[in-house]
Amino acid sequence: MSEITSSIPLQINPDLQEERDKASFNVTELTHIIYGGIEKTKKRKRLEKLLFSDPFFQEYQNVRAFGSRSEYYAASVKKSTKIFKLRRQHKWTDEEYETVLDICHDDLALTLHHTMFIPALERLATEDQKSKWLTLAKQYKIIGTYAQTELGHGTYLQGLETTATYDPQTREFVMNTPTLSAMKWWPGSLGKSSNHALVLATLIISGKKYGMHPFLVQLRSMDDHKVLPGVRVGDIGAKMGGNSVDNGYLILDNVRIPRNNMLMKNAQVSPDGKFVTRGPSKANYATMMLIRVQICTMAYQVVSSGATIGIRYSAVRRQSKLDPQDREPKILEYQTQQYKIFPGLAMSYAFLFASRSLTRKYEEAFAEIQRGDFKSLPELHCLSSGLKSFCSEHSVRQVEIIRQSCGGHGYLNAAGLGMLVNAAAPMITVEGENTVMYLQLARYILKRFAGAMSGQQLDGSTSYLSMDPATYVCPVMSETDCRNLTALCDIYRYRSYMTVCRVARQVQHDMESDMPQHVAINKNLVDLVRAAKAHSYYIVVKDFVEGVDALVASAPVIKVLRTLCCFYAAHGIAEYSGDFLESEAVGLHQLKWIKNLQVSLLGEIRPDAVALVDAFDYHDITLSSALGCYDGNAYERLFKSTENDPMNKEEVHPSYYQYLKPFMEEMNKSKL
Amino acid sequence: MSEITSSIPLQINPDLQEERDKASFNVTELTHIIYGGIEKTKKRKRLEKLLFSDPFFQEYQNVRAFGSRSEYYAASVKKSTKIFKLRRQHKWTDEEYETVLDICHDDLALTLHHTMFIPALERLATEDQKSKWLTLAKQYKIIGTYAQTELGHGTYLQGLETTATYDPQTREFVMNTPTLSAMKWWPGSLGKSSNHALVLATLIISGKKYGMHPFLVQLRSMDDHKVLPGVRVGDIGAKMGGNSVDNGYLILDNVRIPRNNMLMKNAQVSPDGKFVTRGPSKANYATMMLIRVQICTMAYQVVSSGATIGIRYSAVRRQSKLDPQDREPKILEYQTQQYKIFPGLAMSYAFLFASRSLTRKYEEAFAEIQRGDFKSLPELHCLSSGLKSFCSEHSVRQVEIIRQSCGGHGYLNAAGLGMLVNAAAPMITVEGENTVMYLQLARYILKRFAGAMSGQQLDGSTSYLSMDPATYVCPVMSETDCRNLTALCDIYRYRSYMTVCRVARQVQHDMESDMPQHVAINKNLVDLVRAAKAHSYYIVVKDFVEGVDALVASAPVIKVLRTLCCFYAAHGIAEYSGDFLESEAVGLHQLKWIKNLQVSLLGEIRPDAVALVDAFDYHDITLSSALGCYDGNAYERLFKSTENDPMNKEEVHPSYYQYLKPFMEEMNKSKL
Repeated sequence: MSEITSSIPLQINPDLQEERDKASFNVTELTHIIYGGIEKTKKRKRLEKLLFSDPFFQEYQNVRAFGSRSEYYAASVKKSTKIFKLRRQHKWTDEEYETVLDICHDDLALTLHHTMFIPALERLATEDQKSKWLTLAKQYKIIGTYAQTELGHGTYLQGLETTATYDPQTREFVMNTPTLSAMKWWPGSLGKSSNHALVLATLIISGKKYGMHPFLVQLRSMDDHKVLPGVRVGDIGAKMGGNSVDNGYLILDNVRIPRNNMLMKNAQVSPDGKFVTRGPSKANYATMMLIRVQICTMAYQVVSSGATIGIRYSAVRRQSKLDPQDREPKILEYQTQQYKIFPGLAMSYAFLFASRSLTRKYEEAFAEIQRGDFKSLPELHCLSSGLKSFCSEHSVRQVEIIRQSCGGHGYLNAAGLGMLVNAAAPMITVEGENTVMYLQLARYILKRFAGAMSGQQLDGSTSYLSMDPATYVCPVMSETDCRNLTALCDIYRYRSYMTVCRVARQVQHDMESDMPQHVAINKNLVDLVRAAKAHSYYIVVKDFVEGVDALVASAPVIKVLRTLCCFYAAHGIAEYSGDFLESEAVGLHQLKWIKNLQVSLLGEIRPDAVALVDAFDYHDITLSSALGCYDGNAYERLFKSTENDPMNKEEVHPSYYQYLKPFMEEMNKSKL
Repeated sequence: MSEITSSIPLQINPDLQEERDKASFNVTELTHIIYGGIEKTKKRKRLEKLLFSDPFFQEYQNVRAFGSRSEYYAASVKKSTKIFKLRRQHKWTDEEYETVLDICHDDLALTLHHTMFIPALERLATEDQKSKWLTLAKQYKIIGTYAQTELGHGTYLQGLETTATYDPQTREFVMNTPTLSAMKWWPGSLGKSSNHALVLATLIISGKKYGMHPFLVQLRSMDDHKVLPGVRVGDIGAKMGGNSVDNGYLILDNVRIPRNNMLMKNAQVSPDGKFVTRGPSKANYATMMLIRVQICTMAYQVVSSGATIGIRYSAVRRQSKLDPQDREPKILEYQTQQYKIFPGLAMSYAFLFASRSLTRKYEEAFAEIQRGDFKSLPELHCLSSGLKSFCSEHSVRQVEIIRQSCGGHGYLNAAGLGMLVNAAAPMITVEGENTVMYLQLARYILKRFAGAMSGQQLDGSTSYLSMDPATYVCPVMSETDCRNLTALCDIYRYRSYMTVCRVARQVQHDMESDMPQHVAINKNLVDLVRAAKAHSYYIVVKDFVEGVDALVASAPVIKVLRTLCCFYAAHGIAEYSGDFLESEAVGLHQLKWIKNLQVSLLGEIRPDAVALVDAFDYHDITLSSALGCYDGNAYERLFKSTENDPMNKEEVHPSYYQYLKPFMEEMNKSKL
C-alpha cells in the first residue's frame, strides 16, 4: 500500500470545507469582534507570524508531546529566552506581550520573572529599591520569582511559617524555614531557573511578630548559578501538566540579607529595629485581583480551544449509521455528540463576554483606585473571586467532556485535549482555591442580603438582592417565551435570590440556636457554596445577554450569538433543573419547554458550529492538535505525529535485547 | 535547619492514628468482606509480599513518575517478564494472576498476551490450531496481541476496512490495509512488543465479502524481532496515561498467510475457497462481555484508591480556621471537603456490591451457556453495558473531584491522583464507548417496555417496567423515612420508570409522525441516554441495598455500611434532584428532607472515614501516592519524592549553560 503515507494533503478536508461553505455569517467579522477590532486581529496575526516563522516553535511542540521532563523544561528555557529577546527587540507593550503568551499557550520556564516578580517589585518596593532592583531585573542579571506558598500552607496566608528575624547588630534579616511544612513549595521558576526570590515571611523584631512581608533573597550566584550557602532549592517533581515550568521548593537556613532587602513601600523597619507600617496598600490588593480576572480570560481560551478541536474533529470523523441507506455520518450529526460539544461552544462565548465585562470593571476600579477612591474594591473582589471559580470549574470540566467525545483519539497527546485539560486544571487551585473563593463570595453576598433585609439600597452585582420575591412570576408563560433572553436571565436571577435567601435564613436560624458561630457556618458550607455558584451563574448569563444586546454587528452575527446565548441559558436550566425547580424559578411546565428548546437549538447551532469555532482563529501551533487542525486532515496528522515518537526511533526497541529476548530464551528452554 | 530532612518518620502520623483509634467497627472484618473471606485476604497478602520483596517494584514507581516514555515502557517490559516468570514458577491460577495485576495497578507492556491474545486463541481456534499456537504462545515464542480497532473505526465493527482476500492458487490469505483510515491503531502491545497479532479483517473470496474474521498474522521475526516484509508497525505516541503500554499501529501490504491462519472454530474456508459458517459463537460473545464486567470492578478499584488517598490526606492536612480559638483543623472537618470526598467513599462500596452482583450474574449466565442455554444473554448484555458505562463515568469523575480536593499537591505525580485519573480515563472509551453502550441499553429497555405495555411478563433487571405507575406514592412520608433503604430504592425505581416511559412515548410519537425512523431516534438520543443512566443508577442502588441486606457481619460493620448506602442514595437524589422532581418520584418536601439527611450523614460518616478506606487494604506501592500512604507522613514523602526527580540530578540544570547564561550575557551587554 505505497499510497498510505503520513504526508499531509494540501487541500482542506472536503467534510470540513462543506461546513465552512454553509455558514450563515461572516467568520472574519466575528473574529474581529472577539479580538476587539480589526487592528487587534491584525496585530495578533503579525505577532503569530513573527513567532512561528522560527522553526523552533514547531520543534518545541514535539519536545512537549514526546520529550522527557528535563528536555521539555530545557526547551522551555530556550523558548523563554527567545521571547524575552523579542520582547526587548520589538519593545512590546504589556498588551503585546500578553498576546504573545496567549499565542504560545503553555507557560514559559521563566514565566514568573515578568508576570509576578517585576510587577511585585514595582508594587512593593520604594523608589530607591526600584531603581536598583528593577534595573537589574530588566537587564536579566536578576532572574526572579515570587515565593509565597509553603508545603503545609496554601490559601490561608496567616498560616505561613517562614520567618525573617531582624538583627539590629548587623542590620540584617535572618531568613529561616523553621519546619518541614514551612518550606516554600510550588512557586514557579523557583526550582532551577531563578537566582532571586521575593520570599513572603513573618517579620520578627525582638521576639515580636509583625505580620507577613516580602523579602528579596538571593538564591543562586549571578555569575555561575550555583546555589548560595544556607539555601536548599530544587524542583518539586513532575506534574500532570505545566512541566515546562520548574515549580520549586526552598529551604532557608539562617540566610542573612541586608535590611534594605525588605520591600518597604508599605511597611518599614528602621536601622534600629523600629517597625512602621502604612498598612497594606489597597492598590497592591487590586493588583492581586488582576490575576483572578486573567484566569477568567484563560478559562475562555481553554474552553474555546477545546471546542475548536472537538467540533472540527466531529466534522471529519465518520462513524456508525443513522440512516441505514446512507454512508457513515459525521459524528457531529448525532444529537448526543452535539450535546457533548455545543455546551462548550456556547460556554466559550459566554465566558468571552463575562471576562470582557469583568476586565472592564477591573480597569474602571483600578483607575478609581489610582485616584484614591476605593469604593469599588469589595464589589470587584466579589465579582472576581466568583467568576474565577465559576469559569475555571466549568471550563475544565467541559473540555474533559469534549475530550471524551473524541473517543480513543482524544486520549493521545497528539490530540492536544488531554494536555489542554491537564494544563488548565491548576486554574481551579491557584490564586485562591475555588471552594475558598466561593465561600468568600458567599459571605459577601450574605452581608449584602442582610443589608437589603434591613432596608439598605444595594448597587452593583448584588443589587437584585433587594428584590421583593413575592412579585416574581416566572416570565416564561409559553413555549415561545423561552427564546426571550431577558426572561431566561430573570429566571437565573430569581433562582440565585432564592438560593441565597434560603441559606441566609438557615445560617441565621442556626446562629440563633445554641450553636457556636463556627459550627453554624460549617454546617452550612455546602449550601453557601451552592448560593455562590447560583449567583455566579446569574452574572455570567447576564453578562452574555447584555453583551449580545449591546453588540454592534451584522444581523447574521447577532442572530447566531443570540442563539448561542439562548442555548447557554437553557442548557444551564436543564442541567441544574433541580435547583431551578426547588427555588420555584420555573415549574415543571416551563422546564419541559426549556428542555425542548434546548434540543431544538442543538439543530440550529449545528450548521454554524465549524464557523463559530473558526472565528476564534487559533493558529494550528497554538492549538497543537492533530484532531483540531484547520485543514481537517486529522488522520494524516495523527499518523505524521508518530514520526516524532522516540519509541519509533529504532525498529526494535532496546528493551527487546535487555529484557524480552533473554526472557523468551529462558522460557523456551524451561519446561511448561 | 539541619532537622529538615526527607527521612520518613517511623511512627504513624498522630493525626491519622487518632482517626484509627476512634473507628466504630473492626477494619479487618470489613477487609475480609471486601475480598471475599479471610483466605482470599491472606492469599492476596502473600502475593503482595512475593512481588514487593523485589526492590524492582519500588524503582518501577520512580520510572513511572519521572522517566521518559521510552524508559517507562522498557521498565514495563521488564515488569512483564518478571511477572510472567513468577506466573509460571508459582503456577498461578487465573484468579491469582488477576490479583497480581490488581496489585500492580498499571498495565504491563505485554498485558494483552495473557488477557486477550491467548483467551482469543482458546475461543476462536480449532483444536488443531490450538495445539500449535497455544503451545507456542504459552512458551512465549509467540508474543501476541489482538488487533481490531482501526484509525478511522472504533466501536462500529461493520465499518472496519482491513481485508483478507483468499487466494485459492496458493491457499493463502492476502492481508491488506487498503486506506489510511484502515490501519490498525490502538491495539495494546502492538507497537513494539508483539511478534504476532490476531487481526480482525473482512474475508473476501472471489470478490465477495463474508464478514469479519480473525487472522493470525506474524509481524516480527521470532528470532530477532525484526519487522517482516509487507508489515509496517509502530507506536502511536504518548498518551495521557497508560504509557507503560505500546499501543500501536499496523499497516499490512499484501502480507500472505497460510489458509490455516484464519481461526476457524466459528467459520471456515475450505482449500478450494468455500466458506462455511457455524455463525458467531454465543459463548464467544459472552466472553467479550466479561471485559465489561471487569471494567466495573476496575471502576471500584479506581474510586476506592482515590478515596483512600483523599481521606488519608484530608486527615493529616491542616488548613485555615473553623474555631478561631483552635489550631488549624484537619481539612476533613470542613463540610465542603466531606462533600467532595465522601461521595467517592460511598461510591466505592456501591460499586463493590454492584460489580460483585454483576460478576455473579455473569458466572451464572456463562455456566448456563456452557450447558447450551443462552436465555440470559440479552439480560447480561443489558446489565454489563449499562454498568460498564455508569461505573466508569462516575468513578473517573469522582476521582477527579477528589484530586481537586487535595489542592495543589493533588496535581503532583507523586500524589498518585492525576495518574490514577489519567490511567482510568480509557474505561470510558474502551470495550464499547459509553454513549454507544448507554444507547444499546436504552434500545433494550424500550423493547422491554413495549413488551410490558402489551402485557408481557418481564423478569430480570427490567421487570419493574411492568409496574403500574398510578399506584406509586412516594414512600418517604416523613423525615425519618429517608433512612429507609427500601424507600430510597423505590424512589430510584420510579424515577427510572418515568424517565423510560417519557422517552418511549416521545419516540413512539415521533415515529407515528412523518419522520423517518432514524430521524426520530436521533431526535431523542439525549433522552434515551438519560433513561439508560436512570436505569443504571437504580440497579446500582438496588445492588447496594440488597448487598448490605444480605450481609452476614457484625452489627457495627452492618451499621456503617447501611449509613454509606443511605448516603449514596440520598446524595444521588440531591445531585440529580431535577430528574427526581420532574419524574415526580419525590416532591419538594421530600427533597428537602433527603438533602437534610445527606448533610447529617456527612457528620455520621466522618469518624469512620479513615477506617472505611483502611479496609480496602491497599499496599503503599499499589496506591503509589505520597499523600495517601498508610503512615500519613505525606509531607516527608512528598519531599522524599523529589530526590528521584531527574531535574534535581545536578545543582545547575544543563539548560543554564545552553540557554540561560548566554542569554543573560547578551542582555547585560546590550542597552535596555
